[in-house]
Amino acid sequence: MSNGPAASALAIDAMGSDLGPAEVVEGVSLALRSFPEIRNHIILVGDKTVLGPLVDKKKLEKYAKISIHHASEVIGMDEKPIQSLKNKKDASMLRAIDLVKDGVAQAVLSCGNTGSLMAAGTLRLRTLPGVERPALAIVAPTKDHNFVLLDAGANPESSPKNLVQNAILGYNYGKVVLHNERPRVGLLTIGTEEGKGTELINETHSLLKQMGSMIDYKGLIEGFQVFDNHVDVIVCDGFVGNIVLKACESLINNMKSYLKKRLQENPLRWMGALLAMGAFKDMKKQFSTERYAGSPLLGLKGIVVKAHGSSNRHAIMHAIHLTHKMLHREMNNRMLADIQTANDIMNPNNHSVDVR
Amino acid sequence: MSNGPAASALAIDAMGSDLGPAEVVEGVSLALRSFPEIRNHIILVGDKTVLGPLVDKKKLEKYAKISIHHASEVIGMDEKPIQSLKNKKDASMLRAIDLVKDGVAQAVLSCGNTGSLMAAGTLRLRTLPGVERPALAIVAPTKDHNFVLLDAGANPESSPKNLVQNAILGYNYGKVVLHNERPRVGLLTIGTEEGKGTELINETHSLLKQMGSMIDYKGLIEGFQVFDNHVDVIVCDGFVGNIVLKACESLINNMKSYLKKRLQENPLRWMGALLAMGAFKDMKKQFSTERYAGSPLLGLKGIVVKAHGSSNRHAIMHAIHLTHKMLHREMNNRMLADIQTANDIMNPNNHSVDVR
Repeated sequence: MSNGPAASALAIDAMGSDLGPAEVVEGVSLALRSFPEIRNHIILVGDKTVLGPLVDKKKLEKYAKISIHHASEVIGMDEKPIQSLKNKKDASMLRAIDLVKDGVAQAVLSCGNTGSLMAAGTLRLRTLPGVERPALAIVAPTKDHNFVLLDAGANPESSPKNLVQNAILGYNYGKVVLHNERPRVGLLTIGTEEGKGTELINETHSLLKQMGSMIDYKGLIEGFQVFDNHVDVIVCDGFVGNIVLKACESLINNMKSYLKKRLQENPLRWMGALLAMGAFKDMKKQFSTERYAGSPLLGLKGIVVKAHGSSNRHAIMHAIHLTHKMLHREMNNRMLADIQTANDIMNPNNHSVDVR
Repeated sequence: MSNGPAASALAIDAMGSDLGPAEVVEGVSLALRSFPEIRNHIILVGDKTVLGPLVDKKKLEKYAKISIHHASEVIGMDEKPIQSLKNKKDASMLRAIDLVKDGVAQAVLSCGNTGSLMAAGTLRLRTLPGVERPALAIVAPTKDHNFVLLDAGANPESSPKNLVQNAILGYNYGKVVLHNERPRVGLLTIGTEEGKGTELINETHSLLKQMGSMIDYKGLIEGFQVFDNHVDVIVCDGFVGNIVLKACESLINNMKSYLKKRLQENPLRWMGALLAMGAFKDMKKQFSTERYAGSPLLGLKGIVVKAHGSSNRHAIMHAIHLTHKMLHREMNNRMLADIQTANDIMNPNNHSVDVR
């Protein structure tokens, strides 16, 4: 990052999307045209015979430096993470990660296999000094605000220290993504009376209270407060986080399909639905996650962002914008400093070394 | 239960409802009038000076034997569970539980403080022989089926054995409440590939596979399958179960309130909503939990059922019906037998004693 954050490069796995590389290139084009602040060097990683003509056609070089980094293989969505890393050494996702590892790029974005990205990101980039485990952070919408939830599945068995670090990572990410300089942080549990949750929660809660003003820790929250604008950053382990997010998504789909069927079974109801369509559209927009299509794996040496496999060009545009913001705000440097402070608070004995 | 299940008695904490004892008595009246099969002895527990006139007025004695068991105190919704047990020895909830403990009644139903009911039920009745921890079971609706989820919060830190026992308890409860003689059982995790979840899940999964045909174990399910008609009984620990259920409930309320606001802000939309009202009503009915207003704390010596604090007479009627079914089907005896079989499979060394 010697040229400052504005000059940092973004490696994009151009082959991992369900919609194909052309959609990814369209996403890059939209991002460069829509957000004048994005002038990072963009490195598209994948089959150069496919990507070359796509890039030439879009004339992107007038907006930013664009290059293509060749990779001959693609990791499939259903491949097993660890095996895919072994079997496909020339996969676009892995080459893109290696660009960050080698310092050529400072961030990587992929729509590919989540498990492979988490495994390869963690194994190849390693965590920031002091961070024990990376955490996947998701932004979810409600009727009147958005919140960050982490960990959404990177680390299913967490220690209190892992959860405290998740809080630090999520707080710093929340600042960038929620446009809120002091996001409220909550720890997810059952029953908010002290001592009611698990040992993991009680110990984490007591550590978080020691973090002072470094984060805005609001204490314990219950399941029914998740969507209730109590906090902006919800901290939990990857097991709970993954299940809660997926169950909520499945509930929305289930109810939507029920309602649609009931509306369609009667012409009067359907007419009513058409008249009320504006409200349904508002709702779809409000609860859409497209604006937050990129989910970072936080805590690594480099920015790693996962976009949905089915991301269209707009989703990819937003994911690029998000990645740019994390680079521009030097999020990882802030995290690094806060994690060191937090670790010193958690392990006061190690701290004495710094005092000399 | 010497007189057979039909003659078993049901103790009802008549004071614990937010809507007052009159609503509880109305619920009893509705249950007896609507379900001719319910002819259990009903023991209403609470202040006799309040309950006496309410019961006299409803003329319930022509349907079933009704009695009033006096209790002078009521546990409030916000009282701390363990403290409430100590401070209010003559609370209606505790007296009702004691009727089961003393063999006067075989089941207890309360709309009161969930924590107090779980604590008092567990401490005073104790678990069925072989059951290590009780589990709270919830029935949740989807567009095309209902499922049981347990544990919903009784036991936040579970062992593999606890989860296997939850599966047995839930399977037997599923038979009664879902009208399905072979409910499909799934274990909730992240990622359904074997070995991907936590140690707790992996060990539980391997134990459940050893249960043979005793339960219809379908294996691991992920969060996005919760509402997807994959299984009828979802097994998880009380921490995950409580958070998932509460988060989903909070999501529904959040979306409903958003949609209502957007429909009301424009007369055309509101007219459309009125035309489509039938579909919204269907949806409200389909996703209503009123028919499953009672949630049993399974695995205790006696049937313990919690109804919502805000239960109206219809919800109480359904909860009484549910309690009746659990008694009538001798659910606890079936659980007892299955738990013993499961424990023998899990601890083959203890089994040799039975062989002699």
